[in-house]
Amino acid sequence: MPSYTAPLKDMQFVLHDLLDVSGQDIPGFSELDRDFTAAVLEESGKLATEVLLPLNTVGDTEGCTLENGVVRTPTGFDDAFEQMKAGGWTAMDCDPDYGGQGLPYIMHMAAQEPFVSSNMAFNMYQGLTHAAYAAIYFHGSDVQKATYLPKMTTCEWTGTMNLTEPHCGTDLGLMRTKAVPQEDGSYRISGQKIFISAGEHDLAENIIHLVLAKIPGGPEGIKGVSLFIVPKFLVNEDGSLGPRNGVSCGKIEEKMGIHGNSTCVMNYDEATGYLVGEAHKGMRAMFTMMNEARLGVGLQGYAQAEIAYQNAVAYATDRLQGRDVVAPQNPDGPADPIIVHPDVRRNLMDQKSFLEAARALTYWCAVLIDRAHKTEDKDADGLASLLTPVIKGFLSDKGFDYAVAAQQVYGGHGYIEEWGMSQYARDARIAMIYEGANGIQALDLVGRKLGQDGGKHIMGFFEMVKSFIKENEDDADLKTGFLDPLKAASKDLQAAGMYFMAEGMKNPHNALAGSYDFMHMMGHVCLGLMWAKMAKAAKSALAGGASDTEFYETKLATGRYYMARQLPATAMHLARIQTGAAPVMALEAANF
Amino acid sequence: MPSYTAPLKDMQFVLHDLLDVSGQDIPGFSELDRDFTAAVLEESGKLATEVLLPLNTVGDTEGCTLENGVVRTPTGFDDAFEQMKAGGWTAMDCDPDYGGQGLPYIMHMAAQEPFVSSNMAFNMYQGLTHAAYAAIYFHGSDVQKATYLPKMTTCEWTGTMNLTEPHCGTDLGLMRTKAVPQEDGSYRISGQKIFISAGEHDLAENIIHLVLAKIPGGPEGIKGVSLFIVPKFLVNEDGSLGPRNGVSCGKIEEKMGIHGNSTCVMNYDEATGYLVGEAHKGMRAMFTMMNEARLGVGLQGYAQAEIAYQNAVAYATDRLQGRDVVAPQNPDGPADPIIVHPDVRRNLMDQKSFLEAARALTYWCAVLIDRAHKTEDKDADGLASLLTPVIKGFLSDKGFDYAVAAQQVYGGHGYIEEWGMSQYARDARIAMIYEGANGIQALDLVGRKLGQDGGKHIMGFFEMVKSFIKENEDDADLKTGFLDPLKAASKDLQAAGMYFMAEGMKNPHNALAGSYDFMHMMGHVCLGLMWAKMAKAAKSALAGGASDTEFYETKLATGRYYMARQLPATAMHLARIQTGAAPVMALEAANF
Repeated sequence: MPSYTAPLKDMQFVLHDLLDVSGQDIPGFSELDRDFTAAVLEESGKLATEVLLPLNTVGDTEGCTLENGVVRTPTGFDDAFEQMKAGGWTAMDCDPDYGGQGLPYIMHMAAQEPFVSSNMAFNMYQGLTHAAYAAIYFHGSDVQKATYLPKMTTCEWTGTMNLTEPHCGTDLGLMRTKAVPQEDGSYRISGQKIFISAGEHDLAENIIHLVLAKIPGGPEGIKGVSLFIVPKFLVNEDGSLGPRNGVSCGKIEEKMGIHGNSTCVMNYDEATGYLVGEAHKGMRAMFTMMNEARLGVGLQGYAQAEIAYQNAVAYATDRLQGRDVVAPQNPDGPADPIIVHPDVRRNLMDQKSFLEAARALTYWCAVLIDRAHKTEDKDADGLASLLTPVIKGFLSDKGFDYAVAAQQVYGGHGYIEEWGMSQYARDARIAMIYEGANGIQALDLVGRKLGQDGGKHIMGFFEMVKSFIKENEDDADLKTGFLDPLKAASKDLQAAGMYFMAEGMKNPHNALAGSYDFMHMMGHVCLGLMWAKMAKAAKSALAGGASDTEFYETKLATGRYYMARQLPATAMHLARIQTGAAPVMALEAANF
Repeated sequence: MPSYTAPLKDMQFVLHDLLDVSGQDIPGFSELDRDFTAAVLEESGKLATEVLLPLNTVGDTEGCTLENGVVRTPTGFDDAFEQMKAGGWTAMDCDPDYGGQGLPYIMHMAAQEPFVSSNMAFNMYQGLTHAAYAAIYFHGSDVQKATYLPKMTTCEWTGTMNLTEPHCGTDLGLMRTKAVPQEDGSYRISGQKIFISAGEHDLAENIIHLVLAKIPGGPEGIKGVSLFIVPKFLVNEDGSLGPRNGVSCGKIEEKMGIHGNSTCVMNYDEATGYLVGEAHKGMRAMFTMMNEARLGVGLQGYAQAEIAYQNAVAYATDRLQGRDVVAPQNPDGPADPIIVHPDVRRNLMDQKSFLEAARALTYWCAVLIDRAHKTEDKDADGLASLLTPVIKGFLSDKGFDYAVAAQQVYGGHGYIEEWGMSQYARDARIAMIYEGANGIQALDLVGRKLGQDGGKHIMGFFEMVKSFIKENEDDADLKTGFLDPLKAASKDLQAAGMYFMAEGMKNPHNALAGSYDFMHMMGHVCLGLMWAKMAKAAKSALAGGASDTEFYETKLATGRYYMARQLPATAMHLARIQTGAAPVMALEAANF
């Protein structure tokens, strides 16, 4: 049945050969040597394989149940959650002042990957807590931090994000949830929030809801939105739990996947809430959570594709069907394993060449975020903010596509639930939707990020690609296999940017009609850049006499595949973009 | 909640404006005038909307249950099945000698579309019966036809196809099910078949299983496979039901979707079977079923995308979120409907421009099949056989993609089951797998169909495209918007064919590594051809003073979108194909 082994060798390759984490001049990075990261990731992989993986099907099959306001998580989730907490996995990059281990964010992200691959629904309970931790950490008062963070670091208390209401998701300006100021400085929160992941459950003694609401009399629309802490149980001054607050779960949703996570309708009925940061500036704090969450969602996309890929490879190696058209590869058996067939290879290579570059891109962005936070490097911050919608949108789109592609390797066995492949596709599907549907990511990228700080960050990105190509084009092999295709793809991307500048001025629809294509184009260029850099790293390891030549040769072959067979997509996206808004907007709404 | 209206206007446009069915010199076609087809399709649409659609969610939620060997279908399926039978929908194109209505196959296909859109799982019970009918009709003896067909025409008895075994799907040569000859001319069938759709259920008094099995002592592999009729209840000479045969349902599968259809493990334990056609020639008869079934699966692909699209349009028109970036379109409301946003449009146009051409392609192929059967036109037969894997593979791939895209329009509401969008995606997913997984369709296309009859049919296809372009390029508008892009795409497809010829000779892997891309390329060229022809038809209707100018103008705008924004994909596929087998086959199996 489903299996999973953390791809430790590849994770190590990205951290050290590609990103040279221990050599970065970022506080705390010098201790991230190969032995240290290996030790951490091995343990994370072990927990994933031994504890979380067996619960993945259980979570999918049982789902969560709501009875008399109490949500029960699937069998075994509570024990696993205890092990997750006991291992300190929830606290890795949290501030030691609040009980964290103070490790870099990149270590948190890398350690999360096996958890997400092996049991995405389960891992969301701690994942959302981490995002809520970040919002309070960066925007809360000292008292709020002291009150909530130590318990959230350990996941004794978990966290949630409450944005969506029945009539508003993307457009939070339409929000109706109200926060009425009280004399003691607190607020009374009333309203209904939907799609609240881990909104209610039995894994923690308290749940700290972060809730967006409007203070009556404040500015209209999105500028009148504030952020509040609304604990399930109020917290006494001594830190003990007080009375139950006026918040309850009205319903849990039946969903396509992630059944192990409780997706709740949350009702706030004059619940006590505490303002986080300034009044009416709630979106700023919420974006702290969202940006982190978006990177995590990109990781979910490729991490689901990773476990699906691993199982597809196992099946393709095991399943005997047909013969290699050139010569039997398993002449003593009744048939050859299906991995001999070129189209099965094509499918597996598509998956593998995506996955490894997606991991590299995500880890790279995590390092940029560390650099931004710890060295106040504004360029790193700008680049991370440019990459975030690409990582969220492109990696979740492709992650789903490849989970579906892996399912296809199984034929009919992929469609029945018995083999687990359906679940990876169903679970991965949500990553394209939540934390801002991917169309919104494309809008964020084209409508905001491209022009941010005068276009400085996208120009910096192009400059980085250009100088990498320039610095390395003396290597003829690298040039042919990697740099030339990257140059062509990057040129397409620039041409699209130029088109947006020229035509978007005339009519913004010309840019927005191509935003989704641009997001995918930029995703390809990012993965192409990662492959070019990984190829350089692999060649340099081989030149340096690395013993594991097979690993590095495989890396190079996988990269060549991506450059040759995936990057040509940029020309198609450019052609689509350059048609502008006219064909897209040609119809009256009534004629659809 | 979910809604569906049969797209009668568009169906009529395809049948009459595009295909001119009543003007075809095919026996039985002259009666297919506009009034007649409108009357039939209106009734089919009515049954779909009023009876089948409300049961779609019921089927998904309840699924089928197996208890003591008895399979129960979801609540209401039995009544609906009675209405389906009473309306004569199961018998439309069946032979009047066996109780059928003798209508052309195209009428059967067109009438099926609303059934498939509104309830795919339900419609499979009759769909498979129809395929089993065809196998017996074309390959059975007169006695077999007289015994089984009248009851199968009415669906009093339903049919199944039994190919797959636990260890063999694509490679049927590995089959273990045995058929031992008896003195009375019958056979004793023993073995296990899996993934048998409608294998056991409570909708019919008898089930006629068509079973592939090997007669001991026959040729090895696929050449030793024979086809048998194995009725659930043996049939007495007077046509009444005799004793229960040795066939039973061992299990029903839990699946990703089509829960309303029972997917059975069928155990044959010395069951009585009757040879259909010649011994060891079972695959030929099975291919009669398969080819028909494959066209039906292509229809399933786009028909699921159709209902998903209709609901996405309704939601996009209804849901208020954000403002048109240029100018508010709903200034008196709190926000604009999301259909104003260019990226939502882009998504809906992708769907619409695919759907309408997919319908045209499928109906065209059905007419070719009618022509082949009724006039013994070998070219029509060859072209239909060339198009079949494209229709099955490309339309089911894209149909699933667009069902997913439609789900995306709903944001979080698309992921919860309440709105029904998840089901369309989950149901559509199977179409990529069954009746030969899409990789097998690509193999069939490139490995068999391209070279069939000396490459005559693909050459004929290219010739048809070329002469259509030539005949119409005096129309400057048609030329710019349709013919030029079609010419470019067709050139790409030809270049791919040339590459296969040149490089496939050296190593067949060079062709097979590009087979999937070729199938998609050819799909795009086919849809491009359909759009060019539909554009011509629309222009000619407008020139002829058609009253419904809005419909025809919309048709033209939708076609222009496809040509401008979808056809450029062919260049990407060509680039991928021209990399050959080297990047695809670079890795040792152990290095995946």
